[in-house]
Amino acid sequence: MRIALLGGTGDIGEGLALRWAYHTDHDVVIGSRDPERAREKADEYETELSSRGRDRKVNGFVNEMAADRAKVVVLAVPPYHVADTVEAVADSLEDGDVLVTPAAGVKREDDGFHYHPPGAGSVTQLVADAAPDGVSVVGAFHNLAAGRLANLDAELGIDTLLVADDPDAKETVRLLAEEIEGLRALDAGGIGNAAEVESVTPLLINVAQNNDGMHDLGVRFE
Amino acid sequence: MRIALLGGTGDIGEGLALRWAYHTDHDVVIGSRDPERAREKADEYETELSSRGRDRKVNGFVNEMAADRAKVVVLAVPPYHVADTVEAVADSLEDGDVLVTPAAGVKREDDGFHYHPPGAGSVTQLVADAAPDGVSVVGAFHNLAAGRLANLDAELGIDTLLVADDPDAKETVRLLAEEIEGLRALDAGGIGNAAEVESVTPLLINVAQNNDGMHDLGVRFE
Repeated sequence: MRIALLGGTGDIGEGLALRWAYHTDHDVVIGSRDPERAREKADEYETELSSRGRDRKVNGFVNEMAADRAKVVVLAVPPYHVADTVEAVADSLEDGDVLVTPAAGVKREDDGFHYHPPGAGSVTQLVADAAPDGVSVVGAFHNLAAGRLANLDAELGIDTLLVADDPDAKETVRLLAEEIEGLRALDAGGIGNAAEVESVTPLLINVAQNNDGMHDLGVRFE
Repeated sequence: MRIALLGGTGDIGEGLALRWAYHTDHDVVIGSRDPERAREKADEYETELSSRGRDRKVNGFVNEMAADRAKVVVLAVPPYHVADTVEAVADSLEDGDVLVTPAAGVKREDDGFHYHPPGAGSVTQLVADAAPDGVSVVGAFHNLAAGRLANLDAELGIDTLLVADDPDAKETVRLLAEEIEGLRALDAGGIGNAAEVESVTPLLINVAQNNDGMHDLGVRFE
């Protein structure tokens, strides 16, 4: 399967790109608004993988071209760029493609980090509203600490939560998630449940900031 | 220390009462709106503890009397009774007492369980607004599955999150939490961060409902 990481030059995109390229044989392409930047980062990831004995080709393209080439398209961009990014790549998506959204609306305030969803109720719902007909949306990978994900020496041992209204799309993403070593994918229901999933992101930051020795946190349901 | 569990005849109250009476030497008193019911349940807890070789006295009182006797008062009542309960016991609380609130505003809707905070922004903030001057409020124990907590054979191995604006009160509750075997208390910051903590409660229900073999879930930060 080919996976495009739009915003794949950023931190969560880097982590997912490295993990999929390292642990699976899926074809990973990096997207960016700046194709030059996409190619540079793709080269960096190839070098990192190669240093670990994994000789993988990672290509970099402008977002539209990356989305055009992939069946699963991950919107690894900040929440305020999500809607624009979906719009920019809409014509590159085909019936049956899957859009994956890991973003959460997080606002830093004086007393801590808080969940601030967009008007649609959640970032996942915002993406679902903006997605072209025939393209399914899955919320996933919200609660992965970017630094830990991008460090292939770091063991994960954590869960990620999936929300989607299309069971086939959810299953596709579940399998991709579980192919990452140490990651367990759990079903949190439909897109109507996305706000509770996305709220974990600011919570993880608050817990990390208030407890000595805890950083790059993930969560495990037990 | 003496701990009062208001609503200590209900499921989360039962679990906390049994765990503290079993694992610690703190004095545990059960509160209810109905003193007869409080005494009945206190007797049940004594029997359960005694069957495990722990001969502990557990007393049951009407909420006001239970609160009057304790330094730490846990509001183990449903979220829609929280404000009334604080009002009912306000005259029984003294300067330096600590009110602990484990309730979360959870609403069952067609597509899943959702976080519906009261107008104050969170149940913890609602309690803080209603608490008498000189009484500190700590949000804690939101994310403990009641059935698992009340089953002394069940290992916990999970975390609970604390929010409070008074560091001394938070420390008092942290110590009480960590005296329960298998429970780790983590600091999630001030009461302004309570909504993200309380949102975990509906999330746990959604995850339990959508994944085979998962029930009575807790959460661990790793």
